Amino acid sequence: MVGHKALRINGTRLNETLQSTCTQWGALSSSTGIRRLTLSQADKDVRDWLVNECKELGCEVKVDQMGNIFAIRPGKGEGLKPIAMGSHLDTQPAGGRYDGILGVQSALEVLRTLHENDVATQHPITLIDWTNEEGARFPGAMMCSGVWSTKSSTPLEACYRVTDSDGIDMRTALEEIGYLGMTPCDYRENGLEAYFELHIEQGPKLEQEGKSVGIVTAVQGMKWFAVRVTGVEGHSGTTPMPARSDALVTAALLISAVRTTALETNLGVATVGVITSDTQFQATIPSGIDFIIDVRCPTDAQLAALCAAIFTAFDAIVASESNRTAYSVTRSWGLPESVFHPSCIAAVRAAAVAEVGELQCMEMKSGAGHDAAWTSKVVPSSMIFVPSEDGVSHNPAEYTSPEHCALGAQVLLQAVLAYDGRIT
Amino acid sequence: MVGHKALRINGTRLNETLQSTCTQWGALSSSTGIRRLTLSQADKDVRDWLVNECKELGCEVKVDQMGNIFAIRPGKGEGLKPIAMGSHLDTQPAGGRYDGILGVQSALEVLRTLHENDVATQHPITLIDWTNEEGARFPGAMMCSGVWSTKSSTPLEACYRVTDSDGIDMRTALEEIGYLGMTPCDYRENGLEAYFELHIEQGPKLEQEGKSVGIVTAVQGMKWFAVRVTGVEGHSGTTPMPARSDALVTAALLISAVRTTALETNLGVATVGVITSDTQFQATIPSGIDFIIDVRCPTDAQLAALCAAIFTAFDAIVASESNRTAYSVTRSWGLPESVFHPSCIAAVRAAAVAEVGELQCMEMKSGAGHDAAWTSKVVPSSMIFVPSEDGVSHNPAEYTSPEHCALGAQVLLQAVLAYDGRIT
Repeated sequence: MVGHKALRINGTRLNETLQSTCTQWGALSSSTGIRRLTLSQADKDVRDWLVNECKELGCEVKVDQMGNIFAIRPGKGEGLKPIAMGSHLDTQPAGGRYDGILGVQSALEVLRTLHENDVATQHPITLIDWTNEEGARFPGAMMCSGVWSTKSSTPLEACYRVTDSDGIDMRTALEEIGYLGMTPCDYRENGLEAYFELHIEQGPKLEQEGKSVGIVTAVQGMKWFAVRVTGVEGHSGTTPMPARSDALVTAALLISAVRTTALETNLGVATVGVITSDTQFQATIPSGIDFIIDVRCPTDAQLAALCAAIFTAFDAIVASESNRTAYSVTRSWGLPESVFHPSCIAAVRAAAVAEVGELQCMEMKSGAGHDAAWTSKVVPSSMIFVPSEDGVSHNPAEYTSPEHCALGAQVLLQAVLAYDGRIT
Repeated sequence: MVGHKALRINGTRLNETLQSTCTQWGALSSSTGIRRLTLSQADKDVRDWLVNECKELGCEVKVDQMGNIFAIRPGKGEGLKPIAMGSHLDTQPAGGRYDGILGVQSALEVLRTLHENDVATQHPITLIDWTNEEGARFPGAMMCSGVWSTKSSTPLEACYRVTDSDGIDMRTALEEIGYLGMTPCDYRENGLEAYFELHIEQGPKLEQEGKSVGIVTAVQGMKWFAVRVTGVEGHSGTTPMPARSDALVTAALLISAVRTTALETNLGVATVGVITSDTQFQATIPSGIDFIIDVRCPTDAQLAALCAAIFTAFDAIVASESNRTAYSVTRSWGLPESVFHPSCIAAVRAAAVAEVGELQCMEMKSGAGHDAAWTSKVVPSSMIFVPSEDGVSHNPAEYTSPEHCALGAQVLLQAVLAYDGRIT
């Protein structure tokens, strides 16, 4: 048995496993992209494969009430809670091969490395595959890590009732693929000692700064608002301009104000990525428009201020417009700012610096939400980032080199071992 | 046999036929609305019924290359071309029971009235059901009257290749329902003496003025533009505001400018009724937005001026925006202004005034496009309007009273007879 500090993951094996499972389950035909919607057949297939792999490594596998998979490699300490590594295997409808997937596959590579080297850790070491991180099929990103942390705005029973665009509810979907487990989805009953998540950055900063590892210290706060603008339907040829109540015209002004307000206040970022119209016909004045605003700021105070500024701007627009429309916020949800745990950050920093040296590392906040943001509310957590080529993510063109993937997995291994050594 | 001027259509029969065929073929379950997309099963069923009814009245039925149905009641004159009445039986995805349908059902009621009274006209009298007036399933409103007039921007072979959202092309759809006919779809080979179309107003003017019959003198010119705005996809949480190239932000500014330009120039009306985004995910900055602009003006010169003003505004916005997006017009099509024929207008006026008196009649232009706009390019044509409750159309709530429907059909009958008498 080699000394822990000399242990090395197998980068070639990691890359081959990641690429071959992507090719097998959910590959898009026209690109290297992946469509592996949560609880779909492709998700079931990759889950079944993962469970089998982990069992072959001697892990006990538990599935909780939201389908989250916990594969536990026993430790030698008595009554110690697991140190976990994980992320998610689901993707966007046309996503890439790295977002989420790298975190789970690297966790598996860590388990394989521990197994083949007969490493005995104090704590159990657990791999987690969180259900529905993307929120692409069932609305609600980071849904099931949120339920596990029990501080989500959406509790278990409400999540079971969330439906996809075909009207299938989440509980049914879990049952159908055989992942409606019995383990309580609750950190108090199925707890962890700590949680580490390796992820691609999904932004351009590491690449721009020429760094290879991000030591993530926090996740910015985020809020989403589903907005509906209502007007009056009419015929485009027979309704005079001044008599109109055109929901799309008002929505256009509001969407423009979202960007202007974010730019002017400089508090954070705000985006409208989804818009739908009640009408699909060019000769109809739209009676209703729905859109979603995504607002993110480094702190909760900034987040509250930016949201307030946006809706103040909306009120002013609707009041001054001659268009006689109204708007309402039909749903809002969010994730408060998450500051990671100093002990976890220290373990990641030690592992990263040992591997690539201080100059290749960079402390950073995450602009994107991750399961670690939820876990950090209830157990010590932190994250490792590796570079995304051109900052592209949620897209088939998403790419992180095999070298950076291997580097991330190596840092994950050593951070977990460092944390395990630190506690005992 | 009664004198022609005393002939009366049967309003009760007209209403019963119109309502019962709407209930049978294409009725929405939740309202009195209709979904009878062109060349759908519902459209086939109502076409089959119509053909059978016309044959029972002694008509010869011809189907042309675009599926337009011509049901011809012979006249006693030698070698005379038919005087036609018609409209369309297809509807919007959630349309009403009157738009188009009233014109065809009233034409049938006229044929029934002529038949049961053994009226011998000089000219053949023809009922026409035009295919795909709505352009809701296969893009391109008034498509098949356009092909028949051969002045459409889209000739027959191009129309055959137009596909619906399932990728079914129009030729295949015509074949599938058995309405790919052999008669040339060309006014020169399958000609008419004149064309009359009864239609609901689809606007509020008759109701507001307290009139019951519109004597339609023209249809305004109209142009449609399919616009695509392109930016760069990005993650909403990791892409700084100043670095973005957000296609929806630019599209919002352009959509707002469409309205502002129409209001400021006072040349006509301009509307964006359809908008679609490349992304369906709230955390993605949209890389592409498509929308359609619908522009209508009383004259072609005004139409050209308003379109030019809109695109000048677009160019200025894209040039001044810090958003680094671009726009292109990916398709445009249109219908020039249509001035109806004095003889047809006179026949309608005579019939309307005889029925309800001068005070209940109103000369007007049509804001909406109709098949008569195309036919007027090549044969003498005009239209009769009856009131639309609250001006509502393209909506299940569309309503015209049985009394107004019967009045319209009576004016149609007498206009056709007047025109037939005028010529011989």
